[in-house]
Amino acid sequence: MRHTLSVLVQNESGVLTKISGLFSGRGFNIESLTVAPTIDTDFSKVTIITTGDDKIIEQICKQLNRLINVIKVVDVTGTNITERELVLIKISAKVDRSEILNIANMFNAKIIDFTKKYCTFEVMGDEKSIKSFVELLKPLGIKELVRSGKVAISLD
Amino acid sequence: MRHTLSVLVQNESGVLTKISGLFSGRGFNIESLTVAPTIDTDFSKVTIITTGDDKIIEQICKQLNRLINVIKVVDVTGTNITERELVLIKISAKVDRSEILNIANMFNAKIIDFTKKYCTFEVMGDEKSIKSFVELLKPLGIKELVRSGKVAISLD
Repeated sequence: MRHTLSVLVQNESGVLTKISGLFSGRGFNIESLTVAPTIDTDFSKVTIITTGDDKIIEQICKQLNRLINVIKVVDVTGTNITERELVLIKISAKVDRSEILNIANMFNAKIIDFTKKYCTFEVMGDEKSIKSFVELLKPLGIKELVRSGKVAISLD
Repeated sequence: MRHTLSVLVQNESGVLTKISGLFSGRGFNIESLTVAPTIDTDFSKVTIITTGDDKIIEQICKQLNRLINVIKVVDVTGTNITERELVLIKISAKVDRSEILNIANMFNAKIIDFTKKYCTFEVMGDEKSIKSFVELLKPLGIKELVRSGKVAISLD
C-alpha cells in the first residue's frame, strides 16, 4: 500500500542521509520526497511517499522516531489531509496555441514563459488532476517536466 | 553563495542516501530538496538548494557525477531558469474573514478548506512572493506550514 509519511526534523547536517538510509537499507524505493524549512527555520518537514508492506513501513516509522534530530513521525495515510504537488512543464511552442491555452485554463495552469521554441507552465493540484494535465500535454511533445513531489497538510 | 542543483538519477533504492551523504559528509546542510519521477518514470529529478563555498559545491557536483545511478548534474544557479515553490498553510479561522480573502486574492492563493477552526490555503510562487504571503499571514496565527522546497526548470 502507498503511504504518506510526515516527518518533523531538526535542521542538522546528516538527518536526511539517515532517513533515506532507513529506506534504502531495506531495499525500499522512495517515490517522492520533499524537505524544506517549517515556519520555525530551526526545523524542517520531510514528506515521503513510499509503497510497501504496511508492517515494514510501521517498523521504519518506529526506527525513524528513534533517530537523533527526528522530532516526530506521523503516517498520515488515510487521515484527514490534503495532498498537493507542483509541476513545471515545458512543451514545444510549435503547436496550436489555442489548444495550449485551453488545456492551461482547464487546469488553472499558469504560463510562466512563452518563447518561439517553448511554452512553460506551472500547475499545482492533487495526483489525479496533475496526471490528467500531463496526459493531455503529452501528445503536444513534453520537453521537460519537473515535479516537486507531494506535500501534505492535516485539515484537523 | 546559494546554489540550485538539478540532478537526474535512475530510480534505484539508495541513490538519495548517497547524494545526501555527499553533503552531510562535508557538514553541508541542504536547505531544501525535492525528488520525484520525471516523465520517464525510470528516472527522477532531484532539486537541491544549498549554500556554501562555490569551490566546494563544484567539488560536490563532480563527486555527484561519479555516483552510480546519477545520470546528469547541473548547477543551474544564475542560468535562465524559473524557480517555484508550493506551500500549504493552515491558519486560525477565528479572524476577520475578509482579511483572509483579501490576502488570498493578492497572491492567487486558493482556499482548500475552511472549517470553524481552520482555514487552509495552497499557494505557489517564487521565493519573494511566498515570503511576502507568509509574512502577511503570520499575524493571523499560522498553525501549520508545509513547503515543497524549490523546483527549477530551464527556460532554454
